[in-house]
Amino acid sequence: MRSSGCSGEPAASAQPADSAGLIGPAGALGVTRLLYDGAWLEAQRRLERRLAEAGLEPRFDRAGSLYGRLAGTEAGSGVVLTGSHIDTVRRGGPYDGAYGVAAGIAALAALRRFCGPPQRTLEVVSLCEEEGSRFPLSYWGSGTMIGRYGLEGAARYRDAGGTTLEEAMLSAGFGRPEQPHPRRGDLAAFVELHVEQGIVLERGGEGIGVVQAIVGQRRYTFTVAGEANHAGTTPMRLRRDALAGAAEMALAAERAAVRRGEPMVATVGRIAAEPGTPNVVPGRVVFTLDVRHDDAQALEAFCRELLEELDGIAARRGLELQGELWMDAPPAPMDAGLAERLERAAARRGLAVRRMASGAGHDAQLLSELCPAAMLFVPSRAGISHSPLEFTEEAQLAAGLAVLIDALYELAYEERVP
Amino acid sequence: MRSSGCSGEPAASAQPADSAGLIGPAGALGVTRLLYDGAWLEAQRRLERRLAEAGLEPRFDRAGSLYGRLAGTEAGSGVVLTGSHIDTVRRGGPYDGAYGVAAGIAALAALRRFCGPPQRTLEVVSLCEEEGSRFPLSYWGSGTMIGRYGLEGAARYRDAGGTTLEEAMLSAGFGRPEQPHPRRGDLAAFVELHVEQGIVLERGGEGIGVVQAIVGQRRYTFTVAGEANHAGTTPMRLRRDALAGAAEMALAAERAAVRRGEPMVATVGRIAAEPGTPNVVPGRVVFTLDVRHDDAQALEAFCRELLEELDGIAARRGLELQGELWMDAPPAPMDAGLAERLERAAARRGLAVRRMASGAGHDAQLLSELCPAAMLFVPSRAGISHSPLEFTEEAQLAAGLAVLIDALYELAYEERVP
Repeated sequence: MRSSGCSGEPAASAQPADSAGLIGPAGALGVTRLLYDGAWLEAQRRLERRLAEAGLEPRFDRAGSLYGRLAGTEAGSGVVLTGSHIDTVRRGGPYDGAYGVAAGIAALAALRRFCGPPQRTLEVVSLCEEEGSRFPLSYWGSGTMIGRYGLEGAARYRDAGGTTLEEAMLSAGFGRPEQPHPRRGDLAAFVELHVEQGIVLERGGEGIGVVQAIVGQRRYTFTVAGEANHAGTTPMRLRRDALAGAAEMALAAERAAVRRGEPMVATVGRIAAEPGTPNVVPGRVVFTLDVRHDDAQALEAFCRELLEELDGIAARRGLELQGELWMDAPPAPMDAGLAERLERAAARRGLAVRRMASGAGHDAQLLSELCPAAMLFVPSRAGISHSPLEFTEEAQLAAGLAVLIDALYELAYEERVP
Repeated sequence: MRSSGCSGEPAASAQPADSAGLIGPAGALGVTRLLYDGAWLEAQRRLERRLAEAGLEPRFDRAGSLYGRLAGTEAGSGVVLTGSHIDTVRRGGPYDGAYGVAAGIAALAALRRFCGPPQRTLEVVSLCEEEGSRFPLSYWGSGTMIGRYGLEGAARYRDAGGTTLEEAMLSAGFGRPEQPHPRRGDLAAFVELHVEQGIVLERGGEGIGVVQAIVGQRRYTFTVAGEANHAGTTPMRLRRDALAGAAEMALAAERAAVRRGEPMVATVGRIAAEPGTPNVVPGRVVFTLDVRHDDAQALEAFCRELLEELDGIAARRGLELQGELWMDAPPAPMDAGLAERLERAAARRGLAVRRMASGAGHDAQLLSELCPAAMLFVPSRAGISHSPLEFTEEAQLAAGLAVLIDALYELAYEERVP
């Protein structure tokens, strides 16, 4: 039916990898694009050129998110947006975020080529930041779109090297008043295509996952303070060893999550000891804790009880414990109507579809505050992600793109615009 | 009796701090002089000037250890050496090593001024490295003196930044063929004055400790390999979390040392997780382990049993564990005759003396392979060391210097030279 309005089948020719090589092999060291660093900037510039070649009017917003635009014929009918994030974890895989950006560009390029101008304006976005890998905050891109973050607050956040988010933003060429403000008030819908990053689809044999809700998550940074002392002359019973205390706390978090059962997860991802010398009892340790669950009450109760347990460990060892909660994202339901539409589009392609929750956080959870938002997942081999081993088969990537194209066509070309 | 040969009382005027401000207040961040870094080089240059001012013929050896010399009248009677090391741990205290260097310089300066040339040549040394804080080896200074380390091996060791020991040595201006080789074959005795770095003397109320033996110690670097994965989408039961495994190993080491009882100590001083991102399950963790005991068999048995336990933890968690033993120093007895001489000298000064073992490693344990070696300890307040809080009272520092001067006078001026 779609072909009625199109000169050909957009999905037939579109390839998600067809976006200036944004998705390449990860290599042994994986892919590392941190907010505003050199690799990040180079990738955004490449995408900007790719958008221009495809006739998709590129523009950066003030935060550094890159948009491509396919103008619609019906003014004021709102913008249908797709895309994902460009940044990665350290040594991450090639698909996390990048697939949704590459597929979004490929989708709009194919729709423009075969179907001409839509009624509703279509846009694709390469969001500047989602992972929280460099600065102690996440969703800088979508957070500035919805107003959770104001650009003026960027001076408050520092990376491990002491550089502020504001300094990094300015040095990358963003944050200038003449650049368009990231806030959006004109979105009609957001569809994010992403790799699952889990093993659910592979185990169930489905080709497409349609996300019903995104888990809530909390991220803490804990500082354990004891007393630095000589490793040879300080008897064990006289020590206030911050690292031994932190190790006991990390195991307590793991044990509590196992005891609570799925889908509860708790992760200590970063740890550093000071002074960090083999022959000195550590006097200070800083570590992070990431906790997730799709039920708000369960998440709240788990964190409250765990923090009490950590305080007890610190007290027993004569250590001081300080915890900073720097991320607290509640579970986010996706738009039911939009999710059903994605489900039908996948079914029409003959794909097995699973309704599921997302164990990973995504920009869609923030943009769902602005407009109806939904997510499409494709399988991740062995459920591995945030790793150089992250992999999804070409056919699965193409299937996800085809469903995205169909859904965007429906939303922007077919839907009755009031 | 000494004054017979001297124009005055050397100890009366000598002050250990009187060495170009080598011993200053530590400040909140402590003192950090790492082998061949800027602070280290500046301190050695200041000491070189101080030695020249005091008429103590300064010279550097090829490894960067600095000597001062007071030539003796009896050729071939061997050199009586004192001194300690110039390098520190990260954020260490002001006395560890530096006190023995400053006191040695003050002692030779006072002896030269009041007693003139000795029979045996007196030398003071500011050894380039002892702590193992920058490169994965310790005793670089004394190790090159006894031939344990050859300078040509310096390319094998790298610091955390990837710089080799050889590169650092050359960039600091050392390692050049025209500089004197560090090997020594002419030493008659070595006396090292040092802060205790423990709480034994303070608890016992003694002003001087005379070391009978130095504990043996082993230092390992362990690498735990698991699988990096997404912190939100990887169920707890499917994880191979290298950090959780390392935390369990650190607690096992602590528990085993407590169970074995004093003087056994085991310390995890450094730990790093990769990729080191809050939202990624760590796939790789590297940590160090420092184990010490004054009985060789006890040390051997403890390490063997602990490594078996760590292997068991790794196996149960599906992790790979590799351990590298990069330091293995057996317990080192001091020279009994020389120790008794130090004990008598302290008693003549009216000081309470304790015979004790050293829980810390010292250059004296290496130099004891070259010549009779012994050590003098002064108290450390609260036993705190390797910390900015390290402190010894001025009067205690002066008492240690007085005993050192008396002992050096005996060895170099009075002893019958065959």
